[in-house]
Amino acid sequence: MKTVVVRNIQRAEAAACKILAGLGVSTSHEALGRSGLMKPYMRPIWPGAAICGPAVTIMAQPGDNWMIHVAIEQCKPGDVLVVGCTADNTDGMFGDLLATSAKARGVQGLIIDAGCRDVAVLKEMGFPVWSKAISAKGTVKATLGAVNIPVVCAGVNVIPGDAIVADDDGVVVIPRKLAAEVAAKGQKREADELAKREKLGSGILGLDMYNMREPLEKAGLVYVDNPEDV
Amino acid sequence: MKTVVVRNIQRAEAAACKILAGLGVSTSHEALGRSGLMKPYMRPIWPGAAICGPAVTIMAQPGDNWMIHVAIEQCKPGDVLVVGCTADNTDGMFGDLLATSAKARGVQGLIIDAGCRDVAVLKEMGFPVWSKAISAKGTVKATLGAVNIPVVCAGVNVIPGDAIVADDDGVVVIPRKLAAEVAAKGQKREADELAKREKLGSGILGLDMYNMREPLEKAGLVYVDNPEDV
Amino acid sequence: MKTVVVRNIQRAEAAACKILAGLGVSTSHEALGRSGLMKPYMRPIWPGAAICGPAVTIMAQPGDNWMIHVAIEQCKPGDVLVVGCTADNTDGMFGDLLATSAKARGVQGLIIDAGCRDVAVLKEMGFPVWSKAISAKGTVKATLGAVNIPVVCAGVNVIPGDAIVADDDGVVVIPRKLAAEVAAKGQKREADELAKREKLGSGILGLDMYNMREPLEKAGLVYVDNPEDV
Amino acid sequence: MKTVVVRNIQRAEAAACKILAGLGVSTSHEALGRSGLMKPYMRPIWPGAAICGPAVTIMAQPGDNWMIHVAIEQCKPGDVLVVGCTADNTDGMFGDLLATSAKARGVQGLIIDAGCRDVAVLKEMGFPVWSKAISAKGTVKATLGAVNIPVVCAGVNVIPGDAIVADDDGVVVIPRKLAAEVAAKGQKREADELAKREKLGSGILGLDMYNMREPLEKAGLVYVDNPEDV
Amino acid sequence: MKTVVVRNIQRAEAAACKILAGLGVSTSHEALGRSGLMKPYMRPIWPGAAICGPAVTIMAQPGDNWMIHVAIEQCKPGDVLVVGCTADNTDGMFGDLLATSAKARGVQGLIIDAGCRDVAVLKEMGFPVWSKAISAKGTVKATLGAVNIPVVCAGVNVIPGDAIVADDDGVVVIPRKLAAEVAAKGQKREADELAKREKLGSGILGLDMYNMREPLEKAGLVYVDNPEDV
Amino acid sequence: MKTVVVRNIQRAEAAACKILAGLGVSTSHEALGRSGLMKPYMRPIWPGAAICGPAVTIMAQPGDNWMIHVAIEQCKPGDVLVVGCTADNTDGMFGDLLATSAKARGVQGLIIDAGCRDVAVLKEMGFPVWSKAISAKGTVKATLGAVNIPVVCAGVNVIPGDAIVADDDGVVVIPRKLAAEVAAKGQKREADELAKREKLGSGILGLDMYNMREPLEKAGLVYVDNPEDV
Repeated sequence: MKTVVVRNIQRAEAAACKILAGLGVSTSHEALGRSGLMKPYMRPIWPGAAICGPAVTIMAQPGDNWMIHVAIEQCKPGDVLVVGCTADNTDGMFGDLLATSAKARGVQGLIIDAGCRDVAVLKEMGFPVWSKAISAKGTVKATLGAVNIPVVCAGVNVIPGDAIVADDDGVVVIPRKLAAEVAAKGQKREADELAKREKLGSGILGLDMYNMREPLEKAGLVYVDNPEDV
Repeated sequence: MKTVVVRNIQRAEAAACKILAGLGVSTSHEALGRSGLMKPYMRPIWPGAAICGPAVTIMAQPGDNWMIHVAIEQCKPGDVLVVGCTADNTDGMFGDLLATSAKARGVQGLIIDAGCRDVAVLKEMGFPVWSKAISAKGTVKATLGAVNIPVVCAGVNVIPGDAIVADDDGVVVIPRKLAAEVAAKGQKREADELAKREKLGSGILGLDMYNMREPLEKAGLVYVDNPEDV
Repeated sequence: MKTVVVRNIQRAEAAACKILAGLGVSTSHEALGRSGLMKPYMRPIWPGAAICGPAVTIMAQPGDNWMIHVAIEQCKPGDVLVVGCTADNTDGMFGDLLATSAKARGVQGLIIDAGCRDVAVLKEMGFPVWSKAISAKGTVKATLGAVNIPVVCAGVNVIPGDAIVADDDGVVVIPRKLAAEVAAKGQKREADELAKREKLGSGILGLDMYNMREPLEKAGLVYVDNPEDV
Repeated sequence: MKTVVVRNIQRAEAAACKILAGLGVSTSHEALGRSGLMKPYMRPIWPGAAICGPAVTIMAQPGDNWMIHVAIEQCKPGDVLVVGCTADNTDGMFGDLLATSAKARGVQGLIIDAGCRDVAVLKEMGFPVWSKAISAKGTVKATLGAVNIPVVCAGVNVIPGDAIVADDDGVVVIPRKLAAEVAAKGQKREADELAKREKLGSGILGLDMYNMREPLEKAGLVYVDNPEDV
Repeated sequence: MKTVVVRNIQRAEAAACKILAGLGVSTSHEALGRSGLMKPYMRPIWPGAAICGPAVTIMAQPGDNWMIHVAIEQCKPGDVLVVGCTADNTDGMFGDLLATSAKARGVQGLIIDAGCRDVAVLKEMGFPVWSKAISAKGTVKATLGAVNIPVVCAGVNVIPGDAIVADDDGVVVIPRKLAAEVAAKGQKREADELAKREKLGSGILGLDMYNMREPLEKAGLVYVDNPEDV
Repeated sequence: MKTVVVRNIQRAEAAACKILAGLGVSTSHEALGRSGLMKPYMRPIWPGAAICGPAVTIMAQPGDNWMIHVAIEQCKPGDVLVVGCTADNTDGMFGDLLATSAKARGVQGLIIDAGCRDVAVLKEMGFPVWSKAISAKGTVKATLGAVNIPVVCAGVNVIPGDAIVADDDGVVVIPRKLAAEVAAKGQKREADELAKREKLGSGILGLDMYNMREPLEKAGLVYVDNPEDV
């Protein structure tokens, strides 16, 4: 890993990000073709937030948050900080001071494949974090990492500028160039689902709405009347 | 596994289920003799729900929610869907569309040994889910499973029609034929606990209320005054 | 392990505990020199509680809560119960009856390296618990352990009387003799952080406030303009 | 759970078990239709054993091996002991004394959803064990369980007398009545695989041998020459 | 994810791979600057293998090994197959038939962020596999993935053609363009370590050999004679 | 934590350690009264070693092995190094160079609540290690810890000089002052077990040898002839 900071990155468009934030993680993930999803151990430290913004990426050493300070200078309003680590770690690399600094720069939130602390204060501040753990473990500022290089975070490779969508369902990474296309597909999907939801809500079965009866029968599904008939 | 759907199952009685829902998981589990409890990784996606109803069971392939659609047709008002998987899985096999459909059929809630998504919407809808994970990972409809056969869910074998009690403490499975008996025992237990709670609340010690001092002494418990005496 | 109960322990001073409760886990942990933190799997069963009090310790056998009854008699108002186990365990060793009894004795809360149940009631009662798991699994009263001997709980050795600080960030153990000193250091740290928070909130970068630019450069950090330059 | 011991169970036929032991876990599992597999955390304590025999089942309390002593009396030569627990547990419930006793009764091996100890001696004795953990943690003989009732072990419901196949790939449960049929299907599968192995070993591709090219194309797989073409 | 197969990839040079295989994972990882290491849950299914070769990458759906068949056609002698999954999975996606086919094509080994089966046979064949799990769970051939696109495997982003070094210490990924440079640095490191090993073996302390005494003192390390002096 | 090195510690007697090594972990743990056992995630990196020696303890920062170098100077022949960490960590803090140095000082082995690397070389050298993980992740020498203070390692508090017994069953800590007594009790236990093993090997049941039939009946165990009778 080169210990480098990249100053200029191309960011996913704000318009697409706004749409994606409204669509949420599950719809965006489907619209992308069911990829880009971070592992489900990434959970919000408080419920209800829903954001999308371009990634400013950080490759950090475990237990060392030096690079987060470095990264904040590179942030623009609307950005989302994404922290990957060179090894598994749950230490509390981010707390209320860093959140105050990030918020002052207009950062929307943080995605960190490690720990976070001061969670009661962060909730009060309304600063959303998705993390692997909540831990007060203090960290050092001793070893370099990098900022705005590709980093793997919770199982997904994140390129600086990618659109990061995060809500109560988790976190999904939309490649920058596909953000607008995925947003459009997601909107279409959402519209389709509205109609489906109404039908299902009125009691129409998925079996009928999706025409599943025939393929199920073809696949060999058998109906019997009683447990004894199995 | 036979790829079969059983249409007619015998359901735990509604009266017993109503009582069990009021008693909750811990009391029902004790009244059953301390068995039937699902593993503690099964957690509610939102707090505060407390339900009990007969199980409609689903054996699903990991990452495939086809059988949930099939199962919903077999549900009656008050039923609880219980999904087991043929292998460990955290994918989001259930979301708001399925919840809408299930709710329209009167399903009380879902117990799934896999993932769930759209959790913010499900909370809004008031549809309770106990799951192993929250994950937006999309699933397919490609491989058959079965409906209303016995399934292992989170470490417990569930027979279709068993009474499923679920609240913030987790999920317990009461065999159908024992539901009324367990409900009665649980009510008695609850009444007993009321009296105990009052005594304990007034400052009487469990040591005295349960007459533990003698058995403790017999078992060899020794009191010393100071750490140096150990 | 000797099956013993120690009656008289020296407790961390109430004045120091009060300050530490206000400072919270992260600040107390830093003021102690970044040690004493329990593993991050210890989570509050409901959010928002923040306590500090002297430890009454319990060494329990897995699935056996006999010693908790014994320990409650040894508690004084303001104490915090700390339960370690001789082996990994998630059973629900503590519920609403024990909480009622503990509360009647003035116990502030419970830290248990095992499971807890009746969590909805405990929340209602305002009795805070930090545990490894939530589980309704019933326990027995069959095997002796000990009370007020040193116990390892979630990776930390706790001496009876140590100050236990717990909040939404987790649990930290402050050695009894250091409680006042750590409280003082923590207050100073908090005061320092207030000033820092204001600066950071006004947009001053941590890079500048902490004078990091020079050490970063010395350590070899390089800035480039574009991804192609890496 | 009734605290009961069932004396007479119907056992999977020895002839079928012999064949299944030879086929191994993966082939038996496929021949059963890809079900019945215990969770992959079940690992042999030493490599190289491969057994199959009818299950004598034990439902045990965590940390209590009383019922294993009870069960050994019910064993016949060729049986396999299967232990499920009422809660997650890794204590060392089985060691060299129990193995000596079991071996004297002709028991082939042990499957335990908990811990095992004296593993160096067991290896020397040639007594195979598949367990969740290796742990020296001593256990008690205090609480009843049951013998020869259905038990869930590592995610699978085991009926007494079912054929248990275990080798370096894990453990699979074949329902007693299907043992002969699965053995026959497995033999056929093995024969088929022999021919396939030869073809594949000669360099013929699975793509061609299984005629996958057409379905892959239909499903939308595209070949490009270079990374830039993606 | 595009469902695509890339036919021509640039491979890490054979000469560099040969050196890296000899150096092993720990030395290669250090020579790369302490990055590129897969998570430690990746373990060899049998001990003693040590390989290095260019990656042919596979992005697979959980429980689906269709793409592995597709990938084998793209392999050249010396290649290493690397499988990432779109979601957490432990199913046995690779067994003796695929190993036979891969071996016939000259593939050196497999790295799979999922399960593997037939491990006794694979050991006998001398075909090395590093996997997340051993599981007999059968898989399907139903959903497309991709071959020779970048994939995240066990926390590391792997570009097709990267040099994969694997031995009993785990798996490290060396970017293709750096393979020769890292091999050279690793050889130098190994030579340096030889001298160090001799010194340390003769009883010279690391404290002296590395001149640590002064920096330790500066950092504040204090020596006391007895525990009472702490 | 004070950053201190204690030079003179009192060590468990060599004679007792020799006996304990022969008895092994399970017997020593029982003779101590079923306590002192490290968590079962501590596994030997190669099978067959069985050691016992006095602990030289190290409190290390995660990912930092500086203190291990410091500790080796404090070792005497026969000692066992025991490393605890201030936070969860799997990095490879110990490899062949440190092992060479430790071996030259007569150190018998290492117990580390973190990772270990160069495992193939360590096996070749015959240097035994019990660790939480195998990982090549390189570490730094940047932050102080302490040597020969009490440390928690894998759930057990270790006082410098305590007798550490380790074999294929795991690791147990015997308090220094109890080492001789536990060794004597363990020898008696082993002698008793010899007689028991012979009886059990001859086919006598544990039920009879331990006179369990009466207590089982009293506890309520019921025998029935057939499954239908349950």
